[in-house]
Amino acid sequence: MITKQEIQPVITKKVVITDSLFASYVNAIAEHLLPYQWKVLNDQIPGAEKSHCIDNFRIAAGEMEGTHQGAVFQDTDLYKWLETVAFCIANGTGREYIEIADEAIALIGRAQESDGYINTYFTISCPDKKWTNLVEGHELYSGGHMIEAAVAYFNATGKKEFLYIACKFADLVCRVFGLEEGKCKGYPGHQEIEVALVKLYQATGNRSYLTLADYFIRQRGQEPNYLMEEYKSRQGRNLFPEFREYDDKYAQVHAPVLKQETAEGHAVRAVYMYSAMADLARVERDEEMAAACQRLYENIVKKRMYITGGIGSSGTLERFTADYDLPNDRMYCESCASVGLMMFAQRMASLTGEAVYYDVVERALCNTVLGGISKEGKRYFYVNPLEVWPQNCLASTSMAHVKPVRQKWFGCACCPPNIARTLASLGQYIYAQSEDSLYVNQFISSSSAVEIGGQEIEFSMDSTYMKDGAVRITAKCGKREEALYLRVRIPEYFKKPTLKVNGKDATLKLEQGYAVIPLEELTEVCLQGEILPRFVAANRNVRADMGRLAIMKGPYVYCMEEEDNGDNLAAVLISDQDKIEECALDSRLPGELPMLKTPAKKVTQTIAETDDLYGTPAYTEEKMVADFVPYALWCNRTPGEMQVWVRAQI
Amino acid sequence: MITKQEIQPVITKKVVITDSLFASYVNAIAEHLLPYQWKVLNDQIPGAEKSHCIDNFRIAAGEMEGTHQGAVFQDTDLYKWLETVAFCIANGTGREYIEIADEAIALIGRAQESDGYINTYFTISCPDKKWTNLVEGHELYSGGHMIEAAVAYFNATGKKEFLYIACKFADLVCRVFGLEEGKCKGYPGHQEIEVALVKLYQATGNRSYLTLADYFIRQRGQEPNYLMEEYKSRQGRNLFPEFREYDDKYAQVHAPVLKQETAEGHAVRAVYMYSAMADLARVERDEEMAAACQRLYENIVKKRMYITGGIGSSGTLERFTADYDLPNDRMYCESCASVGLMMFAQRMASLTGEAVYYDVVERALCNTVLGGISKEGKRYFYVNPLEVWPQNCLASTSMAHVKPVRQKWFGCACCPPNIARTLASLGQYIYAQSEDSLYVNQFISSSSAVEIGGQEIEFSMDSTYMKDGAVRITAKCGKREEALYLRVRIPEYFKKPTLKVNGKDATLKLEQGYAVIPLEELTEVCLQGEILPRFVAANRNVRADMGRLAIMKGPYVYCMEEEDNGDNLAAVLISDQDKIEECALDSRLPGELPMLKTPAKKVTQTIAETDDLYGTPAYTEEKMVADFVPYALWCNRTPGEMQVWVRAQI
Repeated sequence: MITKQEIQPVITKKVVITDSLFASYVNAIAEHLLPYQWKVLNDQIPGAEKSHCIDNFRIAAGEMEGTHQGAVFQDTDLYKWLETVAFCIANGTGREYIEIADEAIALIGRAQESDGYINTYFTISCPDKKWTNLVEGHELYSGGHMIEAAVAYFNATGKKEFLYIACKFADLVCRVFGLEEGKCKGYPGHQEIEVALVKLYQATGNRSYLTLADYFIRQRGQEPNYLMEEYKSRQGRNLFPEFREYDDKYAQVHAPVLKQETAEGHAVRAVYMYSAMADLARVERDEEMAAACQRLYENIVKKRMYITGGIGSSGTLERFTADYDLPNDRMYCESCASVGLMMFAQRMASLTGEAVYYDVVERALCNTVLGGISKEGKRYFYVNPLEVWPQNCLASTSMAHVKPVRQKWFGCACCPPNIARTLASLGQYIYAQSEDSLYVNQFISSSSAVEIGGQEIEFSMDSTYMKDGAVRITAKCGKREEALYLRVRIPEYFKKPTLKVNGKDATLKLEQGYAVIPLEELTEVCLQGEILPRFVAANRNVRADMGRLAIMKGPYVYCMEEEDNGDNLAAVLISDQDKIEECALDSRLPGELPMLKTPAKKVTQTIAETDDLYGTPAYTEEKMVADFVPYALWCNRTPGEMQVWVRAQI
Repeated sequence: MITKQEIQPVITKKVVITDSLFASYVNAIAEHLLPYQWKVLNDQIPGAEKSHCIDNFRIAAGEMEGTHQGAVFQDTDLYKWLETVAFCIANGTGREYIEIADEAIALIGRAQESDGYINTYFTISCPDKKWTNLVEGHELYSGGHMIEAAVAYFNATGKKEFLYIACKFADLVCRVFGLEEGKCKGYPGHQEIEVALVKLYQATGNRSYLTLADYFIRQRGQEPNYLMEEYKSRQGRNLFPEFREYDDKYAQVHAPVLKQETAEGHAVRAVYMYSAMADLARVERDEEMAAACQRLYENIVKKRMYITGGIGSSGTLERFTADYDLPNDRMYCESCASVGLMMFAQRMASLTGEAVYYDVVERALCNTVLGGISKEGKRYFYVNPLEVWPQNCLASTSMAHVKPVRQKWFGCACCPPNIARTLASLGQYIYAQSEDSLYVNQFISSSSAVEIGGQEIEFSMDSTYMKDGAVRITAKCGKREEALYLRVRIPEYFKKPTLKVNGKDATLKLEQGYAVIPLEELTEVCLQGEILPRFVAANRNVRADMGRLAIMKGPYVYCMEEEDNGDNLAAVLISDQDKIEECALDSRLPGELPMLKTPAKKVTQTIAETDDLYGTPAYTEEKMVADFVPYALWCNRTPGEMQVWVRAQI
């Protein structure tokens, strides 16, 4: 299943996003999130949870007195900020941060120990405990985020200081971990460094980083089980109280990765690991590894993924549960997990050359990831439910993790910067390139230029597909002996596609889900399809969605909000026999996606003239028009009830 | 609202249960549960979680080496066993346990310290920490259960040894706690001793125990907030890891009890406290306290109680959440909480003389409490969901607390003995007495004798009300100057009631929900009503039950099981316009309640010819007859899916 082509997403290139919806978010990243987040890292936002992140580095560098505060992985907040800065610099929107970034990188360098070790928690709080708590310590996880940031910063600026710091750390990890005698046989308690090491290998050409990633992945779940032995040896003295319920599936050590059949455990850990597996399968051309990736991918996509691209059905331990267990109100669906799912699906596409994996990238991006951030880019969801009744989202209950409104910041702030770095590097999810082809994987209006086969190609996309089904792509390139191709993903929802090339009707030739168009010196492509709003049902095995309908248009899942439909959304019934009409979006919401409307009825049961809790049923029925807004945009007006899956009239 | 009559439930009297359903459970208590539980306490059941309870007492008594094991409240397992033994002795079914009980009581006496202190955890593990961790230590909670057991044992046997031990402990508590200078201003972290102290006052006449109960109740939630100060002083060093989410509502210290408006926090703690409040309101004739009780009662019954009499909507911290928040699959609905709700409602009836409170006693008893125990009396539910899909009840997830099958025993074994002591003392929930009246509060066939106004009354009830709506009560008493009355509760579901007394039609005269019948020397009462199976809806504000129907007959809630209806119960639709038919119960189920049937259809959505997770809806429709069994009897055959609230065809 491994493609012969080397397909690389277009990353750390200047990709200018012009799509009205995405541009507003991407610009918010540079204009609002970066300065806001920098203030957070420096504890300058009143009312937000304290980060203490920069202070931790100062203390570790010996430049300030104090103790470590915040999570053991607090350092990653700075790393993810720097990675986002790097992507913004690459995009041309973040040049004013170079000076601050350079200073922060220098601080990281001063906080790094002479052997390359860096983790402010262990350096400050328990220097004698390094590498002894892989289950919870996050040293490798944090180091991974540093490496990713360093590679991105190097690619964006050409500056090498951060890359040196990252290599010095990675070299230490190479000396500490491995199967060779005298080395620790462990591996990360939270996978992340594996994808980072592949990037570092690609940036430096140093094969030892690839070997280390390969070791970390293949050692996982082997007997004797390093992680579980370490966990048991601590006899319940955990940093994280919730880890009293730790098990071997939580961190995916229940079997060697090649033998894993289903997506298990902590969802973010899982998809980060699967991403690295897909990387290794591609680089090492390992069909067995590729098959394992495919198996895990299918288990997620066919049995354990929400319609919004959310994953992680259990609030407790933020994990996968069972096939078809997809409750709509109490799940986790962490923003980071959907970012990780995008990473995994993107890598599956690079591994196989098949467009279909970008369906899942798109599903996660256009719904959960975009929904994770407010229209101003200042507030975030960590948990992304498909149904919210604000009254029951109470602290110290089973629903405590579900917030009915986006939050300013989180003490455990993995999600906001993860969304930020994803949106800031959006180009990599839109475009990819191989030796002879430019791939267009999303219909998000934008422009860029890449070099393919020694040939610079300038291109731009003007996509109004959600309005009129039209996508126009223009590409300019010089002359060349061998042919170059434009490959445009034709998603399933893009019905009756027709193609014009340079004004002439052309035959739509599909290969691996892509329309293949030979490039001329100037190629103007006009794709036209039909994208109708549609009713969607879930598989019969999903108990939570039985007898319910969702509404989608293109990749966007829609939802009802109390703002438009009154309260008690549970009382609303819609029918897939009715029509869905499109109209203009509420002007308070960003972008130009349509609002959708369908006839509905609200059937409210009453207990015969009392306020009793239980009694003889009586019903009042009220006709209404149900209004739907894109799920990605929910809770950007008055907070209230929200619902994706609406009861179907059967 | 306080009645002038002194109404006392008939407790620790010989009440012989003859009802076919209840008798099978009550007999199972004496025949199976008591010996089984005694083995558990002595760690003699292979495969069950270890109790270590008796060993803890031996170690505390200095008769064995070792450390304390089990929960800090492990002692209560023995106390609840002894209380059940006492009730069985009173009922005439437990005489063979007297010797073992006397030995156990002697052991308790030897484990008691010279000042009266008794708690094996603190005596063994941290004798210097007594009374310093009221939040978690359960010393007063455990002592409360000891006192209840001692009073029951004294009432049943006339033996005083256990009562002395209890008084010695209570006297110590009187010296340690109170508002007087030098005393600790604390109160229990888990209420229970308050109801026990009222019983001890009634058994001994010693008013200081009532004063202590009064202090404990009224001091609660006063500023400075003793419990929260103590909690904060521990800075997260908790015995219970889940207590990192502790708040002032959890143990009902968010306001002085007279100011509490809604049922909050840990459900068992709450209803035990409300029970004591109702006791105090009655004994002290305190109208303000009675009004507080009524307010809290109404909040539960009108807004926070499941149709099964379950309470506690949050699995996390086993607590109340918000009005109308009654999710069907993930809640707690602890068996103990429903026992506590029975206690509270029973006391409200004694406080006010109103029959209506017994509706709630009956609801909790006939559904959640009875459902908490298997037909053989050997397996138990701790959590009582209204909807179960066994596949998602997974360890280390949000659903870990929900077990799809009854368990042998629990490390934290509060529920099994609590159900046992409730069923062993069932008479108190059926009958009560006042100066001039015998009250019949449940239609559970049984017989007994009580003394009322110096007059012995022998009575028996033969109730076939669930079959033919008939209840026959016979009472014999001697001659007397002043009139005596039989007062029979007429519940709401008992429609078109007619009355015959000694073979003659009589006018049904209702007072406070009771049919009042003057007693002659021999009185034969025949009540006839109509009890039809019925559809029930929930209040419109209950999102989880919107568009759903339950089926009840009399006080019994019914449910669908996979055994009778196939899987995917979520796909079944019923209509309240259809008829419900009665037929014979599956012979594998105990008692003679009918099975109920109603026409239904199973509408399964399919995704057009794929196994995809999401897609274009298509439906297959299948007519069926939906079979319902009493909720109390679920999971007594093949385990599988279960559902109380079924989708309504609207």
